[in-house]
Formats: sequence, structure tokens, C-alpha cells
Amino acid sequence: MHFSIPALDTALAPALQAKINSKTKPLGALGQLEQLALQIGQIQKTLTPSLDQPHLLVFAGDHGAAKAGVSAFPQDVTWQMVENFLAGGAAINVFARQNGMQLKIIDAGVAHDFGKRDTLIDAKIAPGTRNYLAEPAMSAAERDAALAKGAEIGRQLAGQGCKVLGFGEMGIGNTAAASLITHYLTHTPLADCIGRGTGLDDAGLARKRDLLAQAVKRAALPTDANALAVLAEFGGFEIAMMAGAMLGAAEKGTLLLIDGFIVTSALLVAARIAPQIRDYCVFCHRSAEPGHLAQLNDLKAETLIDLGLRLGEGTGAALAWPLVRAAAAFLNEMASFESAGVSEKA
Amino acid sequence: MHFSIPALDTALAPALQAKINSKTKPLGALGQLEQLALQIGQIQKTLTPSLDQPHLLVFAGDHGAAKAGVSAFPQDVTWQMVENFLAGGAAINVFARQNGMQLKIIDAGVAHDFGKRDTLIDAKIAPGTRNYLAEPAMSAAERDAALAKGAEIGRQLAGQGCKVLGFGEMGIGNTAAASLITHYLTHTPLADCIGRGTGLDDAGLARKRDLLAQAVKRAALPTDANALAVLAEFGGFEIAMMAGAMLGAAEKGTLLLIDGFIVTSALLVAARIAPQIRDYCVFCHRSAEPGHLAQLNDLKAETLIDLGLRLGEGTGAALAWPLVRAAAAFLNEMASFESAGVSEKA
Repeated sequence: MHFSIPALDTALAPALQAKINSKTKPLGALGQLEQLALQIGQIQKTLTPSLDQPHLLVFAGDHGAAKAGVSAFPQDVTWQMVENFLAGGAAINVFARQNGMQLKIIDAGVAHDFGKRDTLIDAKIAPGTRNYLAEPAMSAAERDAALAKGAEIGRQLAGQGCKVLGFGEMGIGNTAAASLITHYLTHTPLADCIGRGTGLDDAGLARKRDLLAQAVKRAALPTDANALAVLAEFGGFEIAMMAGAMLGAAEKGTLLLIDGFIVTSALLVAARIAPQIRDYCVFCHRSAEPGHLAQLNDLKAETLIDLGLRLGEGTGAALAWPLVRAAAAFLNEMASFESAGVSEKA
Repeated sequence: MHFSIPALDTALAPALQAKINSKTKPLGALGQLEQLALQIGQIQKTLTPSLDQPHLLVFAGDHGAAKAGVSAFPQDVTWQMVENFLAGGAAINVFARQNGMQLKIIDAGVAHDFGKRDTLIDAKIAPGTRNYLAEPAMSAAERDAALAKGAEIGRQLAGQGCKVLGFGEMGIGNTAAASLITHYLTHTPLADCIGRGTGLDDAGLARKRDLLAQAVKRAALPTDANALAVLAEFGGFEIAMMAGAMLGAAEKGTLLLIDGFIVTSALLVAARIAPQIRDYCVFCHRSAEPGHLAQLNDLKAETLIDLGLRLGEGTGAALAWPLVRAAAAFLNEMASFESAGVSEKA
């Protein structure tokens, strides 16, 4: 699997910085938005970037390990929430609608037959992964199919003019898979990668820790196992397909809005396949899941917002999107000291 | 000066919390947005709040002390930036436009004759305050006129159906006035209230500290001086008028979006006049000015975003507004577990 992600146009950085500094504001006064503007300009190789056709993709998949008790919610909630997305009633529907992002729901591997539905993208690899407590979650062929399908979706949207792609997910049990991926790819102790997910109590958290330790033991991967091996071992299909979509979209110069813990686990995989992808990412919000910190440290990333969110679905990306849009807007629309006739610093 | 701000409808809190908890998401998973929804519902005394006609008010005023060297920018920048606001080229124009807030610019006391301008609200108390290094910045009558005019503006907008009012300011030298107000009203050591403003270097910061210490000595106020005395002593007109507008708007049940350091200094004054106002405030962003921390601690406030902004103009309020809107939107628009047919936590 090869992805060819273009390098940023670092030669343009001085001109971008000069344009940012010419705006009618004290130097650096827009903080992180200035860094974002610099990044977006270098991605799009222009002083006048445009963030057209923002999309938010929600990838859904089920996890064989869910029935072993790694989540506070029953597995059926995955397909029920997909129905909620299709009906427009979930948090991500509300936030995407409010902030002008087009929402697309992708069945990457839900254990449910939705029948033919106009608004659901059917990319089902299998009806849920296998239980990684007993065997690998997916075969190498399934993993590669999920990555390839994701890449196709990402490239296709970029080809249609989408310049910004936000990522979200739904899958009961997927914080557990994300914890395992994070443990292997960041070399953080397993316990520090595991949190309460959708709301486990203390006993539930202890059980989750115990089960994931068993999964690590069963898999018996080398500590330097590569990302593709880790992904196949623990899943899920929504994580694999997201990683592919990130890679395919970044190849085409799309800005990627990274949500919380699970989306970042997909990015960890993608970044091992093509490290250049890091430059295309905006880290939207700081998840309440403890393993998110290990991910952010590994990626040397700082988030835009920290509101104690732990919902998934891409809600952090949809909520942070207006800030990203603001970064491009100030670069394009603000007057300069010269054009506005404002005196500069003494 | 008396303001009668209604108490929140705390009796409605259990029903609001039950509605929040019924939404298709794990309990508490929307973090600070859930607290916001609870606050907005109690302000508007309804389970279905509406945030119609959001406005952003920018109050501008000049400071007599500016010419003594408390700012990195020349005093003329105040009126030049007002012209920039009127022409649509400043950061606040870009962000208010992007996020759907109606922007109004108020001349509370700029040392410049703008002539008759359709888009500028002329509420000039005087062409700048007096220099507080030599004498009080304003008389009691000027202060009361500024407060009253602000209250009139706040009440009028509320009467026209405005449910959300964001606050911003422009005034070369006004971080210095805010530092002095913060020192007296929060009893924080003066040096901890003083920052670089629009970008003072080390020598400039040392000079600002020195000048403000002189101002404190000259004023010789008692340490428990009341807010109105402190306000008259150090100004400015834009701060006084903002405090009045906050009070007038809160009387009518308007949600207040509090920007950074200078806007919060106006709120400190308003909160001493009518403590109930605290319940109507959303603290939008964490300013890079060190004195903002003392203010937030005093008001027991937590901000929504922290992006290293230090621009003023209300930019933090305009950038945080979509998050506030999202809080009301999820409360109004999300499906419940029951209505969506989603299983609850096991």
C-alpha cells in the first residue's frame, strides 16, 4: 500500500508570514489561528487559500470484542446510532448542519443489514470484526480492502472539490481498539491508554483493562510490530477505512480535521504508512480519554479546543471547524495596515 | 445607579438536566456544552431556548494616559481602527460576518471627530479620558453618563429581540486601565495584573509597570475603594459604557458573551454593581494578558477556548459564538434515546 503525499510548500512560508503580519492587528495577536493560516496556505500552495465544500465523514463499524464487555453500551447501539444519523437526530447532525459541513455516513462494517439506503454509503467489509480476544480482528485482505475503500472515498471527495475533510466514527467497543493501537504505536503502557469510553464505572474500567491485557497476551505481537499488523490484529473496520480516507485525501491536498481518541488512532496508523500526512492535520479537540494525550504527544500535536467532550461521531471536528474557517478568512479578508491607513507599532 | 437583574430559573434545572440526559449520547459526553445549555435554559426560563439576533458591540474610547507611554501603539490607532471597523477590514468584521453576528461600533469617547456616520453609534462622552497619572480619568457625572448610555443600548437591543450580546473594545492604552481596575477589584498585586498589551517589549513593560504604580500612588484610593470610584479614577469611557450595556442587557435576560481582559474588567465593575450578572455570562476565551487569570478566578469562571488570542475587538467572543449556539442547538434539535429508538447504557 503506497501513498504519495506532497510536501508542504515551505518556500511560501515567508510570504505567508509577511501577509499575516501585515494585517491590522498586533504581531501574533491571533495566536493559534495564525499558525493555522500558515499551515493551510502551505498545503494549498497559495496566499489566498479556500476551504470549499467542507465534509464530515462518519465511519461506522462493529467490534467482535464488544460482546466480551469492553463497553458500557450494548453492540446494537452501533446500528441504532447509524439510523439516528440517517434520521438527522444525533449530535453530529446538529453540529454539521449548524456549521455548514456536509455529512456522510459510511457503513465500514456494521453487524446489521440496513437494506438499500440512499443516504448511507455501503462500504461494508464484513458484519463486524472478529473478537480479538480469541483471534485477529480482521484478515490482511480485509484490512487492505478497508484501507483501499477509504482511500477511494477520500480521493473521490477531493476530486469533486472538497478542500476540508472532518473525520468521525461510531462503533461500540472502538475506544478499546483505539487503546490497543495507541499502546503499540506510541509505546505507552497499556493502562495509560485505557479510559472509560462511553461511561464505564470503576468495575467496568477494571474489566476493560483486564480484557485488553488478555488481548495483548493472546496476540503476542513483537513490541515493534508495524502499524498494519496492529491494525489487522485489533481492528476495527471503521478505523482502517478512516486511515485510508485520510491518506487518499491528503494525497490530493485536502486539509484533515482530526477529532478525538479513535480518529487519532486511525491517524497514528496513517502516519506510520505515510509520515507526511501529519502536515495536513488540524487537531480539533482534546478528548477526555486518557490515551489521547499519548497520541498527541507522539504526533507533537496541540488541539484547538478542550471542552471535556467524549462523544465521538466527529463532534469535536464539527465544533472546531468554524475556528479553522476563521483562520483562512482572516488571511483572505482582513485589511493590511497599509490598505486601512492604520499606524504601525511605534 | 440601580439595576434589577432577574435570578435564574433554578427550579427549571432538573427538567433541563433530564432533557440533556435524554439525548442520544453518553451522560455528560458534551462536556462544557451541557453546562452552557443548562445555563441558557435557566436564563430564558424554558426547555427550548432561542439565541436570536446575536450582536457584537465594539465600544471605542481613548485614554489620556496613552500619551504617557502605556502602549506600544500611538493613540491615533484608536480612531484609525474605528475607521477600519466601519470599512469592514478588521478581524472582528471578518469573524462576526463569518459567524452570523451583527456588528455595531460605538464611539464611547474617541479623541477624534468622525463627523456624521451612518454606521457609527455616536455616544461620545468626551474626546478621550483625562490622564490618570495627573488627575482622575473622568468625573462622576461622565462615568454615570457612560454607564447610563451603555444601559440604554443594552436594553434597546434586548427590546428589539436580541438574545445574545457579545462585547468587544478598542482603545489604545486600555489594557493599562483594565490592569488598574483588576488590581483594585480583585485585590491582586498590581504587577500580576499588568501585561504586554498589544506587544510591549521588556523595556516597555517595565515602563508600563512603573507608570501604573505611579497612578496608584497618585490616586491614593483606599484598598477597599468601590467599583464606581475605581472606574472614574482610571477609566475608560468604553469600559464604563460596556459595563452599563452588560447590566442593561442582563436586566432583560440577554446572554452575555464576555471577551478577554478588557471586557472582563468592565464585567468586574458590573458585577460589583449587580452580582447577579455573573449568571448571564459566557466566558469566551482565555486572554494572553496575565491579569485575565485574576479576573477569572475572582468570577469563578472557566473559558470556552484558549487559542493564545490577544487582539481584543471582541474577537474571542465572535470566535466562541458557534460553540454557544451549538449548546442551544443540541438541546433543541437532538433526538432522545426514546424518540430515536436507541438502547440505553447496560
